Amino acid sequence: VRDLLSRGELSASDVVAILGKTEGNGCVNDYSRGLAVHSLSALFREVLGADDASKILLIMSGGTEGVISPHLTIVSRRADGAPSEGLEKALTAGIGRTPELLPEQIGRRRQVELVAAATRSAMRDAEIDDPGDVHFIQVKCPLLTIEWQKDAEGHGVATVTDDTYKSMAYSRGASALGAGVALGEIDLSEIDDGAICARWDRYSAVASASAGSELRHCQVLVLGNSYRASGDLRIAHDVMHDAIDIEAIRSAASRAGYREASVEFVQAFAKAEADPSGRVRQRRHTMLSDSDINPTRHARAVVGGVLASFFGDPMIYVSGGAEHQGPSGGGPVAVITRRADSAHRSTH
Amino acid sequence: VRDLLSRGELSASDVVAILGKTEGNGCVNDYSRGLAVHSLSALFREVLGADDASKILLIMSGGTEGVISPHLTIVSRRADGAPSEGLEKALTAGIGRTPELLPEQIGRRRQVELVAAATRSAMRDAEIDDPGDVHFIQVKCPLLTIEWQKDAEGHGVATVTDDTYKSMAYSRGASALGAGVALGEIDLSEIDDGAICARWDRYSAVASASAGSELRHCQVLVLGNSYRASGDLRIAHDVMHDAIDIEAIRSAASRAGYREASVEFVQAFAKAEADPSGRVRQRRHTMLSDSDINPTRHARAVVGGVLASFFGDPMIYVSGGAEHQGPSGGGPVAVITRRADSAHRSTH
Amino acid sequence: VRDLLSRGELSASDVVAILGKTEGNGCVNDYSRGLAVHSLSALFREVLGADDASKILLIMSGGTEGVISPHLTIVSRRADGAPSEGLEKALTAGIGRTPELLPEQIGRRRQVELVAAATRSAMRDAEIDDPGDVHFIQVKCPLLTIEWQKDAEGHGVATVTDDTYKSMAYSRGASALGAGVALGEIDLSEIDDGAICARWDRYSAVASASAGSELRHCQVLVLGNSYRASGDLRIAHDVMHDAIDIEAIRSAASRAGYREASVEFVQAFAKAEADPSGRVRQRRHTMLSDSDINPTRHARAVVGGVLASFFGDPMIYVSGGAEHQGPSGGGPVAVITRRADSAHRSTH
Amino acid sequence: VRDLLSRGELSASDVVAILGKTEGNGCVNDYSRGLAVHSLSALFREVLGADDASKILLIMSGGTEGVISPHLTIVSRRADGAPSEGLEKALTAGIGRTPELLPEQIGRRRQVELVAAATRSAMRDAEIDDPGDVHFIQVKCPLLTIEWQKDAEGHGVATVTDDTYKSMAYSRGASALGAGVALGEIDLSEIDDGAICARWDRYSAVASASAGSELRHCQVLVLGNSYRASGDLRIAHDVMHDAIDIEAIRSAASRAGYREASVEFVQAFAKAEADPSGRVRQRRHTMLSDSDINPTRHARAVVGGVLASFFGDPMIYVSGGAEHQGPSGGGPVAVITRRADSAHRSTH
Repeated sequence: VRDLLSRGELSASDVVAILGKTEGNGCVNDYSRGLAVHSLSALFREVLGADDASKILLIMSGGTEGVISPHLTIVSRRADGAPSEGLEKALTAGIGRTPELLPEQIGRRRQVELVAAATRSAMRDAEIDDPGDVHFIQVKCPLLTIEWQKDAEGHGVATVTDDTYKSMAYSRGASALGAGVALGEIDLSEIDDGAICARWDRYSAVASASAGSELRHCQVLVLGNSYRASGDLRIAHDVMHDAIDIEAIRSAASRAGYREASVEFVQAFAKAEADPSGRVRQRRHTMLSDSDINPTRHARAVVGGVLASFFGDPMIYVSGGAEHQGPSGGGPVAVITRRADSAHRSTH
Repeated sequence: VRDLLSRGELSASDVVAILGKTEGNGCVNDYSRGLAVHSLSALFREVLGADDASKILLIMSGGTEGVISPHLTIVSRRADGAPSEGLEKALTAGIGRTPELLPEQIGRRRQVELVAAATRSAMRDAEIDDPGDVHFIQVKCPLLTIEWQKDAEGHGVATVTDDTYKSMAYSRGASALGAGVALGEIDLSEIDDGAICARWDRYSAVASASAGSELRHCQVLVLGNSYRASGDLRIAHDVMHDAIDIEAIRSAASRAGYREASVEFVQAFAKAEADPSGRVRQRRHTMLSDSDINPTRHARAVVGGVLASFFGDPMIYVSGGAEHQGPSGGGPVAVITRRADSAHRSTH
Repeated sequence: VRDLLSRGELSASDVVAILGKTEGNGCVNDYSRGLAVHSLSALFREVLGADDASKILLIMSGGTEGVISPHLTIVSRRADGAPSEGLEKALTAGIGRTPELLPEQIGRRRQVELVAAATRSAMRDAEIDDPGDVHFIQVKCPLLTIEWQKDAEGHGVATVTDDTYKSMAYSRGASALGAGVALGEIDLSEIDDGAICARWDRYSAVASASAGSELRHCQVLVLGNSYRASGDLRIAHDVMHDAIDIEAIRSAASRAGYREASVEFVQAFAKAEADPSGRVRQRRHTMLSDSDINPTRHARAVVGGVLASFFGDPMIYVSGGAEHQGPSGGGPVAVITRRADSAHRSTH
Repeated sequence: VRDLLSRGELSASDVVAILGKTEGNGCVNDYSRGLAVHSLSALFREVLGADDASKILLIMSGGTEGVISPHLTIVSRRADGAPSEGLEKALTAGIGRTPELLPEQIGRRRQVELVAAATRSAMRDAEIDDPGDVHFIQVKCPLLTIEWQKDAEGHGVATVTDDTYKSMAYSRGASALGAGVALGEIDLSEIDDGAICARWDRYSAVASASAGSELRHCQVLVLGNSYRASGDLRIAHDVMHDAIDIEAIRSAASRAGYREASVEFVQAFAKAEADPSGRVRQRRHTMLSDSDINPTRHARAVVGGVLASFFGDPMIYVSGGAEHQGPSGGGPVAVITRRADSAHRSTH
């Protein structure tokens, strides 16, 4: 990043968000996420000052199992003085943020509501009116660390679970439902505490949530296409119904124009989870009963491999734990393509 | 298996070999392999008697990471009284076996020679004359357990390594070179002790080796096509150049007639390894620096996912550790297809 | 074992039970337990016939983390024609067994009742009348495998959890409460479904439970002292209040006469668990937030090290998961000592 | 730390070194070390300025297996204007630093020489003349990361190993030998490249080395007693001959005056390793054949448990990988005690 900035290929003040894959275990005790956030924050504080630096959304997702290559996707945006609408929609981005959550709100309806509000705010920021133009929503959300949970206990407050690893699932689930509520995919009136991480038939087709111990609020990044945006990038999505659903990948790629002569692959975002039924295409899998490797690590390795084999590029973003993010055992997949040259780029 | 036998769908005396994926870690302390061998041996001893049972080759490979489904591939063969050659080649199988190895022979030239002899014997057993008709050679070979290694040390004998996990690599490497020597892919005169697990440009395009602590000799299974065989099964192979080489899978499948209307997928065999260069398609991977999960486990998850997504079936055979089995970072892939109904079947 | 039998040092018909530590992960996918049970069963069936062999209690506990040495403790018993009571109490053993459980009974009050009945039957078998003479109760109990759990789901039956790893905890907890009920340590009327794995103040000071996927009923072994037994072995126990409670070990050892000149150490049995408070002696530990190693594996390594350092012998029995077995974060410890020579011995 | 500084209990300018245990896996991909170094550096740069901050030795050792509690040991030192020698020796500390190493020097004789020089410089800094007064030497040394190693390869330079995990062992081994050379425990003329990580009979009784990916030079901290120092702290050491050598712990504690009425425990430092013989006290252990958990993680859990049970305090420093640090399978143990109140304290 420092190199891109110093070479003038990237202007720090254009940066809206950075999505990264870091090489920890992607589970509770993953300090690679925190280290990356720490380093990037320090860099941007140095360049932009503390105020502007704090506006950049840093979403680090741990776990680069299999061929997934650690990398950063830098989302930048520039006002180009051309307010008139273009002839074609182009990629646009917007961000939103909830207030700090209380430990007892994690994984409960209140988190759903707060994330829905933050998502709407991110859509306005991205100048997207039609929910159908939203193709990827990334939420970074907190998990219940042991300390936070003990704290709540000390105050006589009951949290949704006392298992840190499980709290990641609840927080991701509530976040995804919140994004779905904002897009109209899910009816808030049907979601109560009991539905979260239970009613798997309620899901968002574009939400991706990732939990980390380094924050206590939720951050929302919305990616979509808009006539009001310009540039050569385009985004599209589809929903994988299981971890090996190569047809969904093909369809998302095709909607983004991939395989036309002049269109090249930029980035793919996908969610992965070990099918909770214990089966994939009617065949038993062992991801849920492996006490040595967490199911999310298995699942990321698979989806990462399938995506990388399709696009011929292992530098892709696959995040684990797809609760309410696509159907059970599956997850959303979004693809960004480029027609020519562009201000958005990927580095590592 | 017991069910197939009791329903009369399989005759125990036809069984030549069983290749299985079992759900342990596929590394040194994997007892799922031993348990499967123990159970199958007991079953066949009961049905066939100890003598005939001992002739069946039981090759259990541990590690069903990601979507790979634990299963058995039963290779059976029947003399059908029709000695005349068919018009088309069909799948045939043959087996061979080395004598018990000494600990100091593991991973050294002597193992290469012994496996080469056993492979030639397996080809004769399969009635294959042309090495070009051999499409898959599975070798099950020993590893240097701590006890065996200490034993050797006690006798003042130097083994190739005193690291059990590394000994698996040496043993697989020497076995693959042996198979390659038998097929004429590799010139024995170019192989000395130092070339094993070092000269990665010497490799077999069809050998697959799997190490286990439950045996001290090498077992060889040869699969190929022959005019002298009949049946509706056919096998073909290609070489994957990295873990996401979907083109090689497509080519092997196509050579086996897959995607013709009347041809269906039966089974795929592949080898997986974490690219020792630290990169896949120029992108850095982290499989070699993950101290929580062994590289072979990462690699199996990826290749298993890619194969399963191509064939839409996770019940496939992917074995880890591809030393001298295909080029560095890649490995052989073989595909069996069926025209109609057949005596070879897969169960789990 | 085969060696002991063939050398005449052990008579197969005297064997009551075998407790073993095997070297798998001690969690859900541990096949080392099954392999050991399979091998020992085959051996005893060969020597004793199927009927008598099935009466021997085989309790294999997985997980030999740290210095713990894989081994078997063979409990044998012989009627010696001397019905008169001795002057001193000596070690005695008895066994009991519940019927097969239904999946919905696992971790619920019904399991508590069934184990209580089996424990009483084991005490009668051991000829112990006074619960104060019972110093160690080992229960082997089932876990909810994915298959078993799916089966229950298929029948519309709700199990206590759908997480296989958690089901191990519930099954151990209910088993320990059952043993405590039989000894009068716990009042059955105070135990309902909700108390299991929740009311940690209810516990047995001598129960040790170990869950495995290879059985569907519970097996109970009672060890204690009785005037009606003879021999040179004695057992005593105390309760460790945390994983480093060396005072409790010292006290149990002393009660068993250890450190008298003529008394030697034979075996120690202990339970280990990661303190659920997240602290040991007011210091934060990280066993519960390590997503790479299960908490039970951490805890066994610690208690195994502490016990081995005290007795100078790593061939000890430490089993993980101490729900309702001693206080929260601690567990029972029992010590067997020998005055002279004896029919009970330990091998590996 | 920030709290101690702001409460005035610690003066930043007195801080010489900080030794920490952080909660990663302590192996190659442990980012908890880097995160801690990053955070502490930022804090001290803020308080002291970049120049003085860079003089503080930050030695973070990953891996808090079992009961070991993550913590920092802050070593501070103050000139007290009383140059006259005291009647009793008291704890003193000194630091040294090698230049940046080249990748090909890691694990070779050159590293031994450089660390020996840095150790001598640290002894002078601590005002210790007699090597017999040195009781603990902590060296933080680099490991060969994949990138560094590839870099060397690119320049045609051969490194001692191309396995990152193994490079940690070589770097620790060479560092310990260097410390031993400086103390006269080892004769430099007997150490050539081949002796490193091979001649296990050559070892230091006080050196402790810890490898990390966040530095490319070696840092040396010497702790000892001196008449020229004042204060109420004292240090002593002994050598553990295996992981459960409680007698060595007792002896080091006793030499430091522990168990006298007025002396309290402050801190213990120890090294741990899985006995390479595969046995502890003649009993087989499984730490070397466990492919799911690295041997160093097993070993730290054991030694941490044994030390914590002896002192009744889990906030101790146990670092893994004891190559040339104490005899094979064992390692040095050092104990710091306090008579009254002191400027050295431990926090977390």
